[in-house]
Amino acid sequence: MHHSHQDTIVALSTPPGVGAIGVIRLSGNDAIVITNRVFKGTDLTAVDSHTIHLGTIRDENQIIDEVLVSVFIAPKSFTKENVVEISCHGSNYILKQVIQLLVRNGARLAKPGEFTQRAFLNGQFDLAQAEAVADLIASDSEASHQAALNQMRGGFSQEIRQLRERLVHFASMIELELDFGEEDVEFASRDELKSLINKLLKVISALISSFDLGNVIKNGVPTVIAGKPNAGKSTLLNALLNEEKAIVSDIPGTTRDFIEDEMVIEGVSFRFIDTAGIRETLDAVEKIGVERTHSKMKEASLILFMFDLITDPLPEIHQQINRLENIGIPYLLIGNKIDKANKEIIEHFKDDQRWVFISASAKTHLEQLKQRIVELIHLDDFKTGNTIVTNLRHYESLLNTKQALLTVIDSIDRQVTNDFVAMDIRQSLHHLGEITGEITTDDLLTNIFSKFCIGK
Amino acid sequence: MHHSHQDTIVALSTPPGVGAIGVIRLSGNDAIVITNRVFKGTDLTAVDSHTIHLGTIRDENQIIDEVLVSVFIAPKSFTKENVVEISCHGSNYILKQVIQLLVRNGARLAKPGEFTQRAFLNGQFDLAQAEAVADLIASDSEASHQAALNQMRGGFSQEIRQLRERLVHFASMIELELDFGEEDVEFASRDELKSLINKLLKVISALISSFDLGNVIKNGVPTVIAGKPNAGKSTLLNALLNEEKAIVSDIPGTTRDFIEDEMVIEGVSFRFIDTAGIRETLDAVEKIGVERTHSKMKEASLILFMFDLITDPLPEIHQQINRLENIGIPYLLIGNKIDKANKEIIEHFKDDQRWVFISASAKTHLEQLKQRIVELIHLDDFKTGNTIVTNLRHYESLLNTKQALLTVIDSIDRQVTNDFVAMDIRQSLHHLGEITGEITTDDLLTNIFSKFCIGK
Repeated sequence: MHHSHQDTIVALSTPPGVGAIGVIRLSGNDAIVITNRVFKGTDLTAVDSHTIHLGTIRDENQIIDEVLVSVFIAPKSFTKENVVEISCHGSNYILKQVIQLLVRNGARLAKPGEFTQRAFLNGQFDLAQAEAVADLIASDSEASHQAALNQMRGGFSQEIRQLRERLVHFASMIELELDFGEEDVEFASRDELKSLINKLLKVISALISSFDLGNVIKNGVPTVIAGKPNAGKSTLLNALLNEEKAIVSDIPGTTRDFIEDEMVIEGVSFRFIDTAGIRETLDAVEKIGVERTHSKMKEASLILFMFDLITDPLPEIHQQINRLENIGIPYLLIGNKIDKANKEIIEHFKDDQRWVFISASAKTHLEQLKQRIVELIHLDDFKTGNTIVTNLRHYESLLNTKQALLTVIDSIDRQVTNDFVAMDIRQSLHHLGEITGEITTDDLLTNIFSKFCIGK
Repeated sequence: MHHSHQDTIVALSTPPGVGAIGVIRLSGNDAIVITNRVFKGTDLTAVDSHTIHLGTIRDENQIIDEVLVSVFIAPKSFTKENVVEISCHGSNYILKQVIQLLVRNGARLAKPGEFTQRAFLNGQFDLAQAEAVADLIASDSEASHQAALNQMRGGFSQEIRQLRERLVHFASMIELELDFGEEDVEFASRDELKSLINKLLKVISALISSFDLGNVIKNGVPTVIAGKPNAGKSTLLNALLNEEKAIVSDIPGTTRDFIEDEMVIEGVSFRFIDTAGIRETLDAVEKIGVERTHSKMKEASLILFMFDLITDPLPEIHQQINRLENIGIPYLLIGNKIDKANKEIIEHFKDDQRWVFISASAKTHLEQLKQRIVELIHLDDFKTGNTIVTNLRHYESLLNTKQALLTVIDSIDRQVTNDFVAMDIRQSLHHLGEITGEITTDDLLTNIFSKFCIGK
């Protein structure tokens, strides 16, 4: 699956659809030469890097468009290859014609993520940083944006690299002992090695635990709004959604397509689980509680349980709260319809921190509700700027690293021979290296970059 | 409604949605200064025009994105003002943050078409050319693309300008005579004037008639597929649509959203009219035939009438053909199911040029059918490169010009006084000037540019 990095790739880099402009990007040895064949205005082969040129794209003598061409000369470009960006009028017809013309003149259509893959292969950044580019593009909340940006700028990579360097140092000591095999030399103190590995395990375990948070930051907090029919679940959801829509759509042209039942509260994305009937009964919620143990992705669930303060009787409320406790997922109790509420119930629970009293229809206390929802997610780590693992692949590599390091400790304790200890350390180095891409396979790369959009 | 052209506008110029990159554009006196306030990398106020700079966009110390900034210094830009284009990662979240940051730093959100409007007001091009920019972006077929490109590059404007110059010359002669009022001097020969105006009328009438073609090129040919139930209408439509989809979607990322029942055949767009039941009966088609006289936009209709070659009896076929003749819309007779056809019917019509025999399900003779459809639209003018009027506003101005010129001739024939003739000529100059924007009102401009997309 390895492509030659000599050939020149081309793709549309802006979203499809009608806009003022659309940008076509080429990368490869011949990017400038190929563009120059169809461009009339300036000789692009004679210009400086990072300059822009006005002219026309022509198929023989037929003008296809008036364009601006940006030239980046290797290695001063995103891919470290020659790169050309052609800014066309944003018509799909034109963009398609120009791409086809470039293909006829020697470029080849890029695969998804191929520009970023080349940037990685040419040493522009490591694998975790490359993956962060895709996360950055997909980010739709402050939290996911910051997590992706930190990762893209190398914070996470540096942490992994430091861990790796310390292990490499010890690995080399052990390997040295192997060379002296028969002589029973001990360059690496076993106690010191165990102490180092325990330190590494602590860091790795912290990174592993950060994935719970990283996962909800990246994919949104899977949240269930539960409660009896007519408790006001849809009214609440619509009230929250409309408020967000009003905020998001204040800049024309940037309004994103709303995914029903997904919203950003205080910079964090929440996904409201909305399969048929799931909000109707707590039975369904309990079912999720069982299922979620099968899937790491569902573990950060949150339940918003709504009560009807007019009609719900106190014993029934107590019964539901008991069931919620048993499910073991963080939950918030929402008393709806305060304007016409049974005062006894409010009085009964008024000091209970698990409760928020609102009116979904009158939009009363929604701000307070949002604050309480966000508090339940424990964003402290995010706010302190600690490194957060957001990528399932990295999470799995960290789990594998941890397993290998536990084996190292076990091997030392059982006083097995050096060559086995060395093998275990190499194993943990391998898993750490997978994260930053120091260890890769073509399959791994194909798998990672095929998830990118085309043109990136 | 006139804005100051000193202020700096900002908008997203690429389509909304997730892509590799998104481009934010600023235009105005302070475009560079405002960007420089939030950009870290290079001092943008000290760089050359048409250069590109890598850096970060920052809100205080928080990094929002790593970007490429392109700088265009007035008057060497699209709007002839200072222009900055910021190429960000294509996340709606990021794009929104950057736009909001620029607004907080002194830019203002652009109205639809405001960049192009400024380019027009700053003399970059005339009004017909500005309107062609919007047409170019909306173009989705070779024909509409070429018509828009020709207009954008000034072909139509030049023709109008030449007409206007010749009229201005004569208008000035007549006005001169007015100055000599009492003395009965005749600087402009009335015969010569009439002859000139008749020449102008000929050109203008040709432009007016080109609108029929221009309208179908721009908006698609409104086409009805008629025939009895089970004649194979849907099968044919799907066969044609699927073929086009296969062609269009060969470049990933440029696949356009398919409008059901709209397709491009030989570079021309066809809109298949598909309101409930409209294809079912010829009665409905006759009804359209009556209605269409009320709307210029419907006049270029085409009827594809399908017969079932297995079951339709000859007398009924003759009867339908007679009705089609009476409707007076160009039509094509399609004999479907040739594979199992009643041979008599094919024999009977085999030399009749109005017929095409196909099998929609087996996709037999579809190429021949497409050729015949395109022939019916008379694209000769388009192919010869003659100027074609595609814009309803221009069409109406040309109609008004024609009317005013006819009045001039009438006035000359009735030997009315010079001041009336002069007024009629000024009237026709006014209408011609509206096309290129030499005559404008704020209302007219607002109306034209509000139809643009934001960021253009």
